[in-house]
Amino acid sequence: MGTEGSDAIVLLSGGLDSATALAVALEEGLHCHAVTFRYGQRHHHEVEAAARVARSLGAAEHSIITVPLGELGGSSLTDRSVPVPPGRTDEEMEGKIPSTYVPARNTIFLAYGLALAEITQSDFIYIGINSVDYSGYPDCRPEYVDAFRRLASLATKRAVEGRPPRIMTPLLHLSKAKIILKGTELGVDYSVTLSCYDPDEQGRACGRCDSCVLRHRGFQEAGLPDPTIYQPGAEP
Amino acid sequence: MGTEGSDAIVLLSGGLDSATALAVALEEGLHCHAVTFRYGQRHHHEVEAAARVARSLGAAEHSIITVPLGELGGSSLTDRSVPVPPGRTDEEMEGKIPSTYVPARNTIFLAYGLALAEITQSDFIYIGINSVDYSGYPDCRPEYVDAFRRLASLATKRAVEGRPPRIMTPLLHLSKAKIILKGTELGVDYSVTLSCYDPDEQGRACGRCDSCVLRHRGFQEAGLPDPTIYQPGAEP
Repeated sequence: MGTEGSDAIVLLSGGLDSATALAVALEEGLHCHAVTFRYGQRHHHEVEAAARVARSLGAAEHSIITVPLGELGGSSLTDRSVPVPPGRTDEEMEGKIPSTYVPARNTIFLAYGLALAEITQSDFIYIGINSVDYSGYPDCRPEYVDAFRRLASLATKRAVEGRPPRIMTPLLHLSKAKIILKGTELGVDYSVTLSCYDPDEQGRACGRCDSCVLRHRGFQEAGLPDPTIYQPGAEP
Repeated sequence: MGTEGSDAIVLLSGGLDSATALAVALEEGLHCHAVTFRYGQRHHHEVEAAARVARSLGAAEHSIITVPLGELGGSSLTDRSVPVPPGRTDEEMEGKIPSTYVPARNTIFLAYGLALAEITQSDFIYIGINSVDYSGYPDCRPEYVDAFRRLASLATKRAVEGRPPRIMTPLLHLSKAKIILKGTELGVDYSVTLSCYDPDEQGRACGRCDSCVLRHRGFQEAGLPDPTIYQPGAEP
């Protein structure tokens, strides 16, 4: 591929999608710096899942960066006074932005990705965003990614020197089922990932939130057993 | 202007440019949320200067957000092991990116600006960047700003709803002297601002760094006395 041995920043959340993105980057022979943001998520289980994923797949490095997003408010994912909504119907999901949306989250994460790519001299930034089963977030759309690519081509010293980092979105146009099939082929152990917005104290999935519903449906459509560890009686 | 009473996020560093940007936003009748980032700068004087500026000009609100940039490394502004360079000649400044460049800084700040504009329902984000006396930073160029505008038109819930925040750069094409003249006209007291990259313990300017040199020259060209408080014997 001509990329063998290059460095890549991989944004890693602990969920299914970013684990798959990391597996894709590793398959390309890239030296992967996995980065997880601790941003006032409701639970520390997400960060722990990211560490398990980085370890199990063999990232060269895993950094955890604490960014203030929770204290800004405005989302049920970071604001404990806003309840996480239960899974919605397809009609409800269509075109609506749920309360789990975190304002400008991907822009902030990708901005840090640009800084880290500059510092580590990485030619690639991988992000596992997805526009198919995307829960209605504005910053998961292809046109958003294109706009960020344009920005990345101008924003940093390496960009000015003719080596802008490439923003890689290998999952952008894949359904959840196709992501799962791809990751399974690449050896991802999805039992160590965590997608749930509202896990219990043991880090077990709720089975009800958008993310649980989409994930479970993905395994069903892929014709694979769902390895998710659910709270007792919560399997969808 | 049709903007009277609207909300604006104003990125405020404590320096001369962002103080002027805040004055411009206030002149438009906007309800200004000033935001200062504490990002591992070499000195706390910058943050204190920002608080003085917000107070003296009458911002509705001033928030200080701590973002991890210093710990990422890669700049003499945040990494205490890299010395701040003395002022360079015009030839040296031309087209060169100095070590005071902080990777992706404006992208990270503007990304937070997007989040804050979403949360406060602000229609504007003011940033005092300048492409004339800009010290060679890639993220101060007009094409960079245009790319961020495009991104802002797509990145958030308000953007999807047809109310993307407008990225306002009132100083983009002004020389330092013209910025100073504009701010003076709007009542900015530049003695409370601090532009120096390397002030002493009392917060007095070094008179030698790029920022001090550009600032002093600006007052000279504007035909105004330089109110900067310099270290003993350091006046340029």
